[in-house]
Amino acid sequence: MLQTLHRVTILGPRLSFGSRPFSVSSILRANRAVVYTQTGDPSQVLTTVTYDALPSPAPDTLNIRFLLAPINPADINVVQGVYPAKPSLTSLVEGHEVFVGGNEGLAEVVQVGTGVSGLTSGDWVVMTKAQAGTWASSRNVRPQDVLRLPRADGLTEVHGATMTVNPPTAYNMLNDFVTLEKDEWVMQNGANSAVGQAVIQIAASRGLKTLNLVRQRPDLDDLTRKLKALGATKVLTYDDLADRALTKTIVKDWTAGKGIRLGLNCVSGKDTTAMARLLGDDAYLVSYGAMSKEPLSLPTSLFIFKNLTTAGFWQSRWYKTHTREDKENLMRTLVDLVSQGKLKEPEHEILSIGAEESDEAAGQKIRDIITKMSAGQYGKKVLLRFEGAQ
Amino acid sequence: MLQTLHRVTILGPRLSFGSRPFSVSSILRANRAVVYTQTGDPSQVLTTVTYDALPSPAPDTLNIRFLLAPINPADINVVQGVYPAKPSLTSLVEGHEVFVGGNEGLAEVVQVGTGVSGLTSGDWVVMTKAQAGTWASSRNVRPQDVLRLPRADGLTEVHGATMTVNPPTAYNMLNDFVTLEKDEWVMQNGANSAVGQAVIQIAASRGLKTLNLVRQRPDLDDLTRKLKALGATKVLTYDDLADRALTKTIVKDWTAGKGIRLGLNCVSGKDTTAMARLLGDDAYLVSYGAMSKEPLSLPTSLFIFKNLTTAGFWQSRWYKTHTREDKENLMRTLVDLVSQGKLKEPEHEILSIGAEESDEAAGQKIRDIITKMSAGQYGKKVLLRFEGAQ
Repeated sequence: MLQTLHRVTILGPRLSFGSRPFSVSSILRANRAVVYTQTGDPSQVLTTVTYDALPSPAPDTLNIRFLLAPINPADINVVQGVYPAKPSLTSLVEGHEVFVGGNEGLAEVVQVGTGVSGLTSGDWVVMTKAQAGTWASSRNVRPQDVLRLPRADGLTEVHGATMTVNPPTAYNMLNDFVTLEKDEWVMQNGANSAVGQAVIQIAASRGLKTLNLVRQRPDLDDLTRKLKALGATKVLTYDDLADRALTKTIVKDWTAGKGIRLGLNCVSGKDTTAMARLLGDDAYLVSYGAMSKEPLSLPTSLFIFKNLTTAGFWQSRWYKTHTREDKENLMRTLVDLVSQGKLKEPEHEILSIGAEESDEAAGQKIRDIITKMSAGQYGKKVLLRFEGAQ
Repeated sequence: MLQTLHRVTILGPRLSFGSRPFSVSSILRANRAVVYTQTGDPSQVLTTVTYDALPSPAPDTLNIRFLLAPINPADINVVQGVYPAKPSLTSLVEGHEVFVGGNEGLAEVVQVGTGVSGLTSGDWVVMTKAQAGTWASSRNVRPQDVLRLPRADGLTEVHGATMTVNPPTAYNMLNDFVTLEKDEWVMQNGANSAVGQAVIQIAASRGLKTLNLVRQRPDLDDLTRKLKALGATKVLTYDDLADRALTKTIVKDWTAGKGIRLGLNCVSGKDTTAMARLLGDDAYLVSYGAMSKEPLSLPTSLFIFKNLTTAGFWQSRWYKTHTREDKENLMRTLVDLVSQGKLKEPEHEILSIGAEESDEAAGQKIRDIITKMSAGQYGKKVLLRFEGAQ
């Protein structure tokens, strides 16, 4: 217990273990994690702690070392306590139960316990258990909570660290609701989101056409070029949908009167109502987000007379309701797309926490970036890396 | 041509055939129909005409005589031109193309043309072709547009005349979306509608429990008793859903925490948002109407995190997309329920047009009742009968 505690540095306004914080300035920071003891404003509740090197793994477990872990928008909602998926308490620091932030990440297997098969040191693994606590240097995990990620030419750490949430969401939404033939259209809003960009690329790899909706913005031409470079067929703004002549052209000329049978929504609100009206008969509108924070509001006539179906997609549920084989197949499919150059790294920046930085400084860096991300439209994916982790 | 015209009496503000109307006061009114030549306000465009007895049916057609035909709310929308299903012009009165009102009805086969098999004089038939024009004494039809209705103990003309729209809507919505086990719950709004009452009875016949939502009203106790007599398990008002303690009781106690997996909606608007929140995981919300004239507005989180699916149901589409065998099976199933006393006649009144009434008087009667029905909440189903038709 003392052995553990003397290496723990606890900083941050609302996290305190015991009556006085330990102040340790220049010890070896073997392991670090971004943790919290109660949900709330991330700039208040998040802190960084240093903890001991992990002991050798118990039977049927393994130790992994995280290489990169994204800070996804949903992760922030989990910290805030406003997301349906809840983190679980872990005693990363012995005797002190904390929540470890982070749901997604790429790790390397460091050591496997007896009874673990199919995984060896040096393998790359990703998380299939939700809220695994990936904002950490090292974790001891159960083999069923991770999935081996096959190595492939062109597959980077950034790809690996962002492989279990956005690309599978895009892939599954394109597959699970409507059987689309080559040259059929998919319509999506929030097309510049990480999922949106994956949709564009995966659809293009299948010969599907995409109608991509984005907000009006000063750099619309640049964005349009960027999305088209990924494989987007058309890029329009939500405002464009008010143009009757254009929407007629879309339905009659672009889609040859066939109608668009799949719409993907991460916005909701009135712009999505306009989008839904553009869908053809027997279409599915699949929601995976609601950036407008408005409800999804649709004329009932679309359901009754155009046979519209609206559904939702949540990759976390997919993992819960699918077999290990399904998950392995999905990862193999996505890795194949990467190695064929058909699925690029998301735009990103890496937030490195140096081995020599104090926990206080590290915590502040993370709180700062999350504050910026919470302000909205940060644009790039932020990936966390703890340097010098063992 | 003259032969035809001298029996036609055309009255009504906006319908005129030729330059001067014929005034015929006391001739034999062999056949009459409620017709219009352009869509619009039913009190302006609907009129009643008398027309000749039909000639013997051409090969592969048959002549039928309507016994009873309902005036359904959707029929009024068709006349108004605001319904997706459009009527087709027919030359009921030779040389003058008109729309004949009415979509549903019970008819008796009068005479079959050569080549028609499976139907003989005296058989009861119902319409499977939408907008067949049932507000008429007699029609010449194709065999594929009608379905023989098996006679059964307890099956009345009222049952027959109301058998192709509301009971199948109820039956199919209970079957096509979610596989419900005995003792599972179905929730519906507009529970006092004709479809709602059919839902209650068909659900009860299968051992399903129903949570029925209705508007607050002075005679709520009477309505509750009436719906419970049909087999309703629980009856609540929309206002009741604001009561958190009650909604907790519904979810925890009534449904034993299992969650309601099927909701049926003919209202939309905010009351339906509250209803949707009460549904359990993996539920379907199926819409078949929108009496509030408000959109269906739902938090996107219900789709993503509770896996809600919303769909629509339109019996007209069902007929278009199903085989004759499917339709025969459906009618047989419903007739069986009637003969077992499990599906009662809807509350109704019969609007009889006497053989001696002038077309003008008949037209006025029909326009008056439709004006009353259009004002909303008429309560009873109105069935049209032309007396003395041959």
